[in-house]
Amino acid sequence: MQTVGEVGERAMIALFTAAAAERSDNADDVVIGSGDDAAVLAAGGPVVVSTDTAVAGRHFRFDWSAPEQIGARAVVQSAADIAAMGGALTGLVVSIGCPPATPVDRVLALNEGMVRQTHRLGGRVLGGDLVSAPVVVLTVTSLGSLADLAPVTLSGARAGDVLAVSGPLGGAAAGLAVLSAIEHGADPGLAHRFSALVDRYRLPQPDLTQGPIAARAGAHAMTDVSDGLVEEITTMAGASGLAVDVDSAAVPRPDGLDALAAELGVDPVRWALSGGEDHELLATFAPGDVPPGWTVIGAVGDAGGGPTVDAQPVGDLHGWQSFSET
Amino acid sequence: MQTVGEVGERAMIALFTAAAAERSDNADDVVIGSGDDAAVLAAGGPVVVSTDTAVAGRHFRFDWSAPEQIGARAVVQSAADIAAMGGALTGLVVSIGCPPATPVDRVLALNEGMVRQTHRLGGRVLGGDLVSAPVVVLTVTSLGSLADLAPVTLSGARAGDVLAVSGPLGGAAAGLAVLSAIEHGADPGLAHRFSALVDRYRLPQPDLTQGPIAARAGAHAMTDVSDGLVEEITTMAGASGLAVDVDSAAVPRPDGLDALAAELGVDPVRWALSGGEDHELLATFAPGDVPPGWTVIGAVGDAGGGPTVDAQPVGDLHGWQSFSET
Repeated sequence: MQTVGEVGERAMIALFTAAAAERSDNADDVVIGSGDDAAVLAAGGPVVVSTDTAVAGRHFRFDWSAPEQIGARAVVQSAADIAAMGGALTGLVVSIGCPPATPVDRVLALNEGMVRQTHRLGGRVLGGDLVSAPVVVLTVTSLGSLADLAPVTLSGARAGDVLAVSGPLGGAAAGLAVLSAIEHGADPGLAHRFSALVDRYRLPQPDLTQGPIAARAGAHAMTDVSDGLVEEITTMAGASGLAVDVDSAAVPRPDGLDALAAELGVDPVRWALSGGEDHELLATFAPGDVPPGWTVIGAVGDAGGGPTVDAQPVGDLHGWQSFSET
Repeated sequence: MQTVGEVGERAMIALFTAAAAERSDNADDVVIGSGDDAAVLAAGGPVVVSTDTAVAGRHFRFDWSAPEQIGARAVVQSAADIAAMGGALTGLVVSIGCPPATPVDRVLALNEGMVRQTHRLGGRVLGGDLVSAPVVVLTVTSLGSLADLAPVTLSGARAGDVLAVSGPLGGAAAGLAVLSAIEHGADPGLAHRFSALVDRYRLPQPDLTQGPIAARAGAHAMTDVSDGLVEEITTMAGASGLAVDVDSAAVPRPDGLDALAAELGVDPVRWALSGGEDHELLATFAPGDVPPGWTVIGAVGDAGGGPTVDAQPVGDLHGWQSFSET
């Protein structure tokens, strides 16, 4: 099996360029694609930009996910930040760091996952970089367009708004709990019985078209649930200076989550409140403006109230941070 | 001394956001700056985008450069790719990976170097990400504008063009050789006597405004010298299918380089031909179109000729690749 070190940087980049180019036939907005010093993207208005890094052993594990899933997930994580402003993904650039001993096939599979997911979301892979690093590190920088919409910020919530979410929460955390339980001795059959939850961890598939839909519906504030619902309402409450309360029973949970929680002896609501990496969209709207398919899970209250769950302080329900010990 | 792990991701990002925001007062084109899910940048036309990653121990060393220099250099490396298309830097996003035990002051200094260098180049830091990683990893994704210019590609060289460079080459390689020689027992005073060359390694300062100037002057092909002159002409010759010959004696070398080469017993021309990371711009022009300040160092010849130096095959003069053993 050939390694990246044996094949070399330039040959690898030529393979990436070919993989990106063969799918960009009908991308009118790509003026210069992958393979030059920089790419050039046509822009009809403001450009939304966000960058996100995932590190092997910290954000993903090759024994827990296929490389295609790891690549696709890195794209979803970055693209969700574009959607959270009300933007639509147009293109992205990718940096891959990996040890020289990494099999070429693994890196090509990572890249394939990124290219496919980018196309699925309506964008194009515009270019990238490949460097030697002690572990696999993926950085995805996404670009998006707003069309004629104003960007929806973190800080725009208004007293009297309702809080709504675009899909179920807690699935990624539950899927991770399955893999972790098996590693600690649980029956490996658990991963088969709860495969839909494990898939939600391996590759969350939020409907990111809901970002522009929410913006068009008049969302006042929006973010994506990357670090857990309680963490996100804490940020929203802080940015707006308002109270943000979640009705914990109203938060949608994916199929199978309650059954798994019963089996593992944990509280399913806690996964929904604190679990990160679902990347569903969380927004506040005037009460009549919530788009179809969204679920109202709380309300925005008066100034200075801060974040609460069921009208109680959030306590230890904070979610995941990159440097936390958990 | 506080560490990043003690302070946590959110507190660190708040410090970065503050550092970026205080310098963005008069940036009319930044619609939404650092601190939200994504930034929003006004764009009047095509957007140029490129990403570049630098890894501690591979691309820089904290015992060889100050963190401010390491941060600034990562910005120069990425921004040079924008200039190489004829673009002007407008903004960039930054991802910093670091071990939890990294001192906060070191990461703030890295960030300070990036913010300052970005402003020096006329752009703004639009946002970023901070993650836990086994070593420090910096990924800079730069955005630029072309105004009314067409992008200058790698492949546009024409037979009969002259090849020209925007500044001296070999200085970064020579500076690195000084630090390496001292590590292998040479007199530490060498770094003082050749401090200008060491500075060229620590923080190359090419005049990136020459990118748009070259584009306006009618450059047919352009790149930046990141991997060494011979490597770049090999890429240009391959992309255009033409011969590209360098007159080695014509390649400008920085002050002190010949004296250092004599002292270390090496060939100064080799540094100029093979040394990477100077990030000067390399372009081909119709003979009458070379802008002031550029130096003609070669010519573009007929189809199929490939890259040559002094009309000879380039042999072992190829430069640096991320996965090479050197």
